Amino acid sequence: MQFATLLLSLALILVAATAGGRLLARFGQPAVLGELGAGVLIGNLALGGFSGLEYLKTDPSLELLSHLGVILLLFQVGVESTVPQMLKVGLSSLLVATLGVAGPFVLGWGVAAWLLPTATIYTHVFIGATLTATSVGITARVLKDLGRAKSDEARIILGAAVIDDVQGLVVLAVVTGMIDGANQGLSPSYAAIAAVVVKATAFLCGALVLGLYLSPRHSFVAAKFKSRGVLLSVALAFCFFLAWLASFIGLAPIVGAFAAGLVLESVHYRDFVGHGEHQLEEVIEPIVSFLIPIFFVLMGIHTDLRAFAEPGVLKLAAALTVAAILGKQLCSLGVIGHRRDRLSVGIGMIPRGEVGLIFANIGLTLFVAGTPVIDRSVFAAIVVMVMVTTALTPSALKWSFERRGTAGSKRTRPTP
Amino acid sequence: MQFATLLLSLALILVAATAGGRLLARFGQPAVLGELGAGVLIGNLALGGFSGLEYLKTDPSLELLSHLGVILLLFQVGVESTVPQMLKVGLSSLLVATLGVAGPFVLGWGVAAWLLPTATIYTHVFIGATLTATSVGITARVLKDLGRAKSDEARIILGAAVIDDVQGLVVLAVVTGMIDGANQGLSPSYAAIAAVVVKATAFLCGALVLGLYLSPRHSFVAAKFKSRGVLLSVALAFCFFLAWLASFIGLAPIVGAFAAGLVLESVHYRDFVGHGEHQLEEVIEPIVSFLIPIFFVLMGIHTDLRAFAEPGVLKLAAALTVAAILGKQLCSLGVIGHRRDRLSVGIGMIPRGEVGLIFANIGLTLFVAGTPVIDRSVFAAIVVMVMVTTALTPSALKWSFERRGTAGSKRTRPTP
Repeated sequence: MQFATLLLSLALILVAATAGGRLLARFGQPAVLGELGAGVLIGNLALGGFSGLEYLKTDPSLELLSHLGVILLLFQVGVESTVPQMLKVGLSSLLVATLGVAGPFVLGWGVAAWLLPTATIYTHVFIGATLTATSVGITARVLKDLGRAKSDEARIILGAAVIDDVQGLVVLAVVTGMIDGANQGLSPSYAAIAAVVVKATAFLCGALVLGLYLSPRHSFVAAKFKSRGVLLSVALAFCFFLAWLASFIGLAPIVGAFAAGLVLESVHYRDFVGHGEHQLEEVIEPIVSFLIPIFFVLMGIHTDLRAFAEPGVLKLAAALTVAAILGKQLCSLGVIGHRRDRLSVGIGMIPRGEVGLIFANIGLTLFVAGTPVIDRSVFAAIVVMVMVTTALTPSALKWSFERRGTAGSKRTRPTP
Repeated sequence: MQFATLLLSLALILVAATAGGRLLARFGQPAVLGELGAGVLIGNLALGGFSGLEYLKTDPSLELLSHLGVILLLFQVGVESTVPQMLKVGLSSLLVATLGVAGPFVLGWGVAAWLLPTATIYTHVFIGATLTATSVGITARVLKDLGRAKSDEARIILGAAVIDDVQGLVVLAVVTGMIDGANQGLSPSYAAIAAVVVKATAFLCGALVLGLYLSPRHSFVAAKFKSRGVLLSVALAFCFFLAWLASFIGLAPIVGAFAAGLVLESVHYRDFVGHGEHQLEEVIEPIVSFLIPIFFVLMGIHTDLRAFAEPGVLKLAAALTVAAILGKQLCSLGVIGHRRDRLSVGIGMIPRGEVGLIFANIGLTLFVAGTPVIDRSVFAAIVVMVMVTTALTPSALKWSFERRGTAGSKRTRPTP
């Protein structure tokens, strides 16, 4: 593609993302739904007879920018996941996260095996993996709007959402490891799975330990980062290096990017938190804001509406959505303590977003015996699951908190 | 290139740029010199027998990111060029800029015609164009360090540097228009040149007028930009659209990006300047900080040291550097007012940076009758010119201001 055409495409994508996002926000819906929807619209204009934008589906420059955006998004998630915060929410969050990963994973696997009997086990397992991770951004905003951001339930949900990102990445590593093995003629073995789990866990824990080790040296490190420009360059270089390293040892690059964020968070946290400064977050944010809408719009563009005309795709989409919602209700079993609102925790864990889409997108590029692990119809079904779970959560969460009335706060129940 | 390899390359480039920049900054030199130098080192490792990084010279993904960086840099320059500030410095700046563009342009053209007699007139004119624009960043920092940022001389220099960017872009438009014409079999005519000048001027003036027109509506526009993310997306989309539009009507995309910055500056200026906020600048800055080092390092990488072994290249580099320095001394004639320090203005206009490199880089991709307008040896000579003019300025400017002692400020002359 000509560079000038790329510039026009970027302008179009950014305008579509913003317009879609603002429109949905006006209806009290998460902006990401609008970005995805705008992409679906653009990607299916050919159905209406306009094929002038079909090149967007295969353009390598846009793919590159959206991939970089995903790397930086996971880096940002890592930077924002403060380790002390993860340790504080403790056992409840760990249990909630683990049950909330296991539930949808098993249900999703089952649904896939039931509705796609001719697909390989790799496809079934991979579909299960795409259902695992909660997208905390949407729940966090709703909790804030409801004035419940400081409640016990909120702390459990936010902590669990961070932990299930980590667990989801480990699941992804295992599944892609199995697929790599299959392509080398190996059938899945417990030993091979254990090896990948150990590798992924070691990588992420190594990042945490490195971060804690670097913490006492923070003033030395920070002194070197005199300007924001240098801080940004060094942080990005570290993120890209760990993403490459993860890929080098057979994990997904996003695992490395997330780990890099965890390391730098630790270095950074103690240095700046006291002064109300969040330098690193502040400088990463605009880069992610530029690149991530490209990712969401492209994911929408890749959603082929004709797929829903194929037999069984709508059924698959519906079943996966139900599996995604019911699976997370297992979370309520993980909530320790009597006075806590288990239902609200289960509902708060429902929304899937970027991580599910990122996994599905990786699945599009993985092949077993020449067949993609995730094909266009499954991808379309996953996009529906992401959109529905995201769209349902705000009102369900409001209902669930209001049902309990004053239990979580000191305010009286509002008159309906 | 594999995506993982790109990540590693980005990490390497960012580390090299930061290390080079910090090292040079430690010696009181502009960081950009270190970034360029690091690139030269990486690009010529093959001379030492290591050819593992040769792929960096031709990688399209890195080219793409550096081109986007250039677009956004010119956008940023446009946003930071406040129109009221340009109007305030007035006649002196306009004269200084015009003379400072004409001088190096004619001298550079002459030097090229003298030392490259076999090259076409397009090469001669293009080389002249690469010498036109002052890189104001370096001078601005030195003036600040010397405590002269508010002096008359500083205001004249900074205003003139903005105006000569505009004039340089017009010169570039004319030269590339001539080259386009030559490829269609047309010889350069005054009418064709006049047409391009009118087009480029109309484009840039149109942007200024649009900006002034939008100003009264700023509160309406700003009200729509409730979040920084939306502001950024809309601003970037506008920048990319105008860059495409410029390219569509036959101008360089950077002309459009600069114009977009001028428009948004005007919209933005009146709204936020009173509150000490600079939202748009703040959110563009990190994106530019990420992408621009890639551009500078790549420019260094493209500098082939073996070119200097070819007969005449060192001589060309030296002659262009002299032309660049002497040409800008014409600026002193444009300074109106007796008590102003003409020599300091001339010296302050010396450094060439990103704009010269961007022009040279465009020249690498333009062809007349199958020959690139700027070849590898000329490119190497231009890089030398950029590095020497940049390296000379800080100490020359310090000397020049100290020579006048108390003339510009109320402080007494420091004892040597």
